[in-house]
Amino acid sequence: MSDTTTTKAAAAQRRKRSLSGIKPTGSPHLGNYLGMVVPAIALQETHDAYYFAADYHALTSVRDPEEMRRSTYELTATFLACGLDPERTAFFRQSDVPEVCELTWLLSCVITMGELSLAHAWKARKAEGDEGTALHGLFAYPVLMASDIIIYDSDVVPVGKDQIQHVEMARDMAKRFNYHFGETFRLPEPLVREEVMTIPGLDGRKMSKSYDNGIDIFLSKKKLKQRIAQIVTDSTPLEAPKDPATCNVVALYRYFATPEELAEMEAAYRRGGYGYGHAKMALLEAMDRTLGPLREKYDALIANPRYLDEVLAAGADKARVVAQDVMGRAREKVGYPRTPHAPR
Amino acid sequence: MSDTTTTKAAAAQRRKRSLSGIKPTGSPHLGNYLGMVVPAIALQETHDAYYFAADYHALTSVRDPEEMRRSTYELTATFLACGLDPERTAFFRQSDVPEVCELTWLLSCVITMGELSLAHAWKARKAEGDEGTALHGLFAYPVLMASDIIIYDSDVVPVGKDQIQHVEMARDMAKRFNYHFGETFRLPEPLVREEVMTIPGLDGRKMSKSYDNGIDIFLSKKKLKQRIAQIVTDSTPLEAPKDPATCNVVALYRYFATPEELAEMEAAYRRGGYGYGHAKMALLEAMDRTLGPLREKYDALIANPRYLDEVLAAGADKARVVAQDVMGRAREKVGYPRTPHAPR
Repeated sequence: MSDTTTTKAAAAQRRKRSLSGIKPTGSPHLGNYLGMVVPAIALQETHDAYYFAADYHALTSVRDPEEMRRSTYELTATFLACGLDPERTAFFRQSDVPEVCELTWLLSCVITMGELSLAHAWKARKAEGDEGTALHGLFAYPVLMASDIIIYDSDVVPVGKDQIQHVEMARDMAKRFNYHFGETFRLPEPLVREEVMTIPGLDGRKMSKSYDNGIDIFLSKKKLKQRIAQIVTDSTPLEAPKDPATCNVVALYRYFATPEELAEMEAAYRRGGYGYGHAKMALLEAMDRTLGPLREKYDALIANPRYLDEVLAAGADKARVVAQDVMGRAREKVGYPRTPHAPR
Repeated sequence: MSDTTTTKAAAAQRRKRSLSGIKPTGSPHLGNYLGMVVPAIALQETHDAYYFAADYHALTSVRDPEEMRRSTYELTATFLACGLDPERTAFFRQSDVPEVCELTWLLSCVITMGELSLAHAWKARKAEGDEGTALHGLFAYPVLMASDIIIYDSDVVPVGKDQIQHVEMARDMAKRFNYHFGETFRLPEPLVREEVMTIPGLDGRKMSKSYDNGIDIFLSKKKLKQRIAQIVTDSTPLEAPKDPATCNVVALYRYFATPEELAEMEAAYRRGGYGYGHAKMALLEAMDRTLGPLREKYDALIANPRYLDEVLAAGADKARVVAQDVMGRAREKVGYPRTPHAPR
């Protein structure tokens, strides 16, 4: 090991480990990008970050192997295109670390049905009625999530306010296990993003796949133009002054324009004689300035699955070593051999 | 590979594969021995048999690692002492094949909450009330059991009539997975023991740990004598004739006596002048004739954990190769890489 490597490793040691799983479900829209991808990647500057494509979780809905494979590659290419540095940050497939399923069983033996049924997502599913038709995987979801967090000795899990419960449940399971079997697991903390960024969609509602009001971040400029044209505006005539505060175009422009550009557009709105068509052109140019280079990187990456495989393998190398170590501790504590017998 | 080995392997190929998991919970009593151990071992003559110490399942109740380790060794020594042939039959720790937990997750994503809640054991637990305090591991038990069965491409699972449901649930999950993802798993069948042997305990009720009316099979002759002395008999005086059909001593004697010995004792009962004390002496001698040599083997085996480890390792070798193959098929079908990435 070179001196540089040693120093790097020591630095990584002092950093808090951060863990995030992302369900691989098709191309990300602006809401995902600004609300999740950008802050997640920013964390690699301050944390020892671990990211995984949550393909075990995805199995509660995906039934098409080709879709599973493709969306995992897409997610990996997205993070790399947006700046994830695979030298510093582990990016891997959840299913490359099957130990997480083993720990899920161990945690299932310390959490009660009553506790699990309090999970927000399950309560929402129950409220829909007919919960007997829900998959067991949906009910058991928080146990797998807890395992995801605990198995990497994670210090923190970046979450929105609505996801704090996941981390609390993981913490409870880790504590319970430690109580029964002795100190084994690190207790994770939520790293709450106070300022929850709600990105407005084409129709002004929160951008969301289920509303079909999103703008995919890797659209070609031509398609991006078509999509921007669909942003809903009111019928104020071109000549009249307009309120920038209530306009869906300005709402998106602020994330891509410089402060000067934004001030300029706001002034033009108030002045009048500036139409929504002009504003949409300005938005297209500003978005393409940021997203164009990412799209080019993305296109090159997605055309190179061999490189993506290398990145995923390197991530799995790093992640699985940690997971096997933590799992080994847990196995010893419950009375199994530290390592499962490897076939000879 | 020698010709003999090839022939043996070919013979094994033609045999149906049989799978049984046994929860490692302390020393077996006569009821376990006659009702389960003996018929299980007999199967190795006709089947390609796989047996495992169900230490993942045991985690729903065992909280002491030392007990977990000890009881797994005890179970292994019991089966070997009673005639399991490790050359022909795989005997292994469930936790040496963690793939079974991974498959549990996959199956959790094809079975519904409604289906799982129909499991007899869960319904019984619910009937006790306050089921929110039950462990999730108890509720999810049938999924792990299904995984145990499916992951070894088992053809048959020997069960009592009350356990047929386990195999049916496993079959349903295998079918469901095959339906969603294409032909992947073999569909297991229950191998029902028609003649369910109910061994009477000291008090005449079914021999059971919960009644504390059992006779452990590896007791020293001295302790065996003390335990036999506790068999409940009526107060018919020595001289009077007795009914062999209602006597708890005769009920056990029939499993250890030759037909001639049994006939002789029955005649003596009817004749009179033959006391329960005499009958108990005869039972002691007959039991010791069968169990004495097993106890000696058991004592030697339990004193040799290194040998037990070898047997368990050989069993795990055989079992894990099959499990990894089946799991590989399943992983490909859902869209994961066939093999999880091995750290380099």
